[in-house]
Amino acid sequence: MKNQLIIIVAAMTLMSFQANAQQSFNGGTVITSPDIHEDHTVTFRVQAPGADEVKLMGDWMPAEGWVPGSQAMEKDDKGLWTYTTSVLEPELYGYAFLIDGVRTNDPNNVFVSRDISTNTNILLVEGGQADLYKVNDVPHGSVTRRWYGSPGLDMTRRITIYTPPGYESGRSSYPVLYLLHGAGGDEEAWIELGRVSQIMDNLIAQGKVEPMIVVMPNGNVSQQAAPGEGIRGYYKPQFMEQGTMDGSYEGAFMDIVNFVEDSYRVKAKKSHRAVAGLSMGGFHSLHISRYYPKTFDYVGLFSAAILPNQNVSSEVYQDIDGTLLTQMENGYELYWIGIGKTDFLFNNVKLYTEKLDGLGLPYAFRESEGEAYLEELASLPVRIYAPAF
Amino acid sequence: MKNQLIIIVAAMTLMSFQANAQQSFNGGTVITSPDIHEDHTVTFRVQAPGADEVKLMGDWMPAEGWVPGSQAMEKDDKGLWTYTTSVLEPELYGYAFLIDGVRTNDPNNVFVSRDISTNTNILLVEGGQADLYKVNDVPHGSVTRRWYGSPGLDMTRRITIYTPPGYESGRSSYPVLYLLHGAGGDEEAWIELGRVSQIMDNLIAQGKVEPMIVVMPNGNVSQQAAPGEGIRGYYKPQFMEQGTMDGSYEGAFMDIVNFVEDSYRVKAKKSHRAVAGLSMGGFHSLHISRYYPKTFDYVGLFSAAILPNQNVSSEVYQDIDGTLLTQMENGYELYWIGIGKTDFLFNNVKLYTEKLDGLGLPYAFRESEGEAYLEELASLPVRIYAPAF
Repeated sequence: MKNQLIIIVAAMTLMSFQANAQQSFNGGTVITSPDIHEDHTVTFRVQAPGADEVKLMGDWMPAEGWVPGSQAMEKDDKGLWTYTTSVLEPELYGYAFLIDGVRTNDPNNVFVSRDISTNTNILLVEGGQADLYKVNDVPHGSVTRRWYGSPGLDMTRRITIYTPPGYESGRSSYPVLYLLHGAGGDEEAWIELGRVSQIMDNLIAQGKVEPMIVVMPNGNVSQQAAPGEGIRGYYKPQFMEQGTMDGSYEGAFMDIVNFVEDSYRVKAKKSHRAVAGLSMGGFHSLHISRYYPKTFDYVGLFSAAILPNQNVSSEVYQDIDGTLLTQMENGYELYWIGIGKTDFLFNNVKLYTEKLDGLGLPYAFRESEGEAYLEELASLPVRIYAPAF
Repeated sequence: MKNQLIIIVAAMTLMSFQANAQQSFNGGTVITSPDIHEDHTVTFRVQAPGADEVKLMGDWMPAEGWVPGSQAMEKDDKGLWTYTTSVLEPELYGYAFLIDGVRTNDPNNVFVSRDISTNTNILLVEGGQADLYKVNDVPHGSVTRRWYGSPGLDMTRRITIYTPPGYESGRSSYPVLYLLHGAGGDEEAWIELGRVSQIMDNLIAQGKVEPMIVVMPNGNVSQQAAPGEGIRGYYKPQFMEQGTMDGSYEGAFMDIVNFVEDSYRVKAKKSHRAVAGLSMGGFHSLHISRYYPKTFDYVGLFSAAILPNQNVSSEVYQDIDGTLLTQMENGYELYWIGIGKTDFLFNNVKLYTEKLDGLGLPYAFRESEGEAYLEELASLPVRIYAPAF
């Protein structure tokens, strides 16, 4: 038996759990859930004859503070629970079931996204901007998970790289967008939760952006790689890993730029480098761009987590006003700040724009409707690399 | 609102579902499940105060035919259900909960593998050969998801490629292993379920195999890509897609070889090409290797699905005996056949070895203990590219 391998898992899953999956029938009909109707209402179904209460949690439902909204599902005489939404706007949504109080994934939907320690089912309602998140019949770039050496952190670290269609067979050099994840994310977050490869493929195919390389590093310096992908093995991810906002990541960031510029055909110039990020990644982008003032002509802060600095000892966070002025003196093409009006970070971001006003740094500001609104990747690349638009 | 984007999903998941995850406390203690103890017993826990019955299904439990084994869990007065296994051999295992009859994933374990339409939680008990499936502190290769044009199938298709450590920075050329998945799999199966990148990294680091490129195509010609990764979007995967065993995949297989040899630094010679596969992939490997008798010096059939041919019209499946003789005349280094004694395919594979005996084709045969035993990837590359072992 000692020669047995993971492959047996595949086989046993195939052979035995498959039989169990076949129990998910209702009167002989395979259950479809989610069932997205032409009018963009959606029906959810789950077979749970032994349950006393089943609820659906969906991120389109109004939440109460930090508690997600939920709706009761209805049980029929065969034990099938059902809920149909009103018309949903085109979007990629997340949802889960609460079966007798236990949060579960939909057993009839294999598509999930992991965020920190939670897998959430996803569904896509097509149309409008949501079509940017789909795989369309356009040329596709490549996505590579690879490893780079970081002398500054004394680690080998995992990184995700998007190269545009035609990169491998061509000889052109490309601009680079360094795209940084939020707290709880890692080098999988932008490609999995953020659908970077689909958005980039689609924007490039529509001629809205210049083909570019997108680099998605891991911003938690206590992690070598996403959970399960590094030597730490499988463990329960925590919300904030140590060392994410203490300056060490920003201080060693040129290790990433050097790796990329040594490894890919890139336009290794300030005029063709962008750094942008979501939430904690916005915080990182703010500090990276001012700490290396000759490196990036494009900066994007999406709902940036601009928080009081808790580790003032780091050199990275010293003399912020002075280094911002140096950044301005070195010049940049775009300093983009986006935030939703009801985002809990709104006031912090607004205070930051006032600081920039006081110092005289120009920036583009996009204030959006919505709770926890985050400025979209889909328009930032357009702003960065398609000046004609 | 029309500018809202997927990113909001990340944010809302982070902000709202996270709050829900925090409900997964038992008396103030975060639940750890699975909890792998030093003696290799494992405790599973799930908080389900409203449930009347919770069972654990694990693929180490004896199954009854196609029905997986399960064990009742015990409820304490706080609604926490618990089950502790006996000592488990080192292995990567799959498991799920049955909560009041509903098959669910463990809400405290984000690590899952998808097989067809089912996500199954995984856990790794370290030691022995299972350490080959871990990420160890060794140099790591890269894994790329990219697309290739298949003129023979008139499709653009997604493919997964492992390149060994040092590939990008070096100038060497490498041998290539074409590794084919089983029924229900796709271009994600070997890398996700089969842990190819970990196994290859480890075998290369141990000096047991020559560094090689591993090519993992999608063997379902009705699919452009794995579910959710192609233009068909999200849908419920079925066990057998059309066109998986009708000769069209094998007939167009040289599209893949040509793509790889045009795109990578490879030793483009019969002496440095291998084709191997699991179950349906073993069937494909059998037919590909005889249909292109000058192409592969190494052939591996792991629990091959050698089934009566249902589509005799395909040219690929004609004159099997004659083409096997041609394959022998062209010569090969290794024709490996592995099968478990209680595998439902055992008799078919045994009949095939008798056919080879009758024709006089040499092969290596490995008959293993176990139900549905499948020959391990971890020893095939050793046999292929490290003849000294």
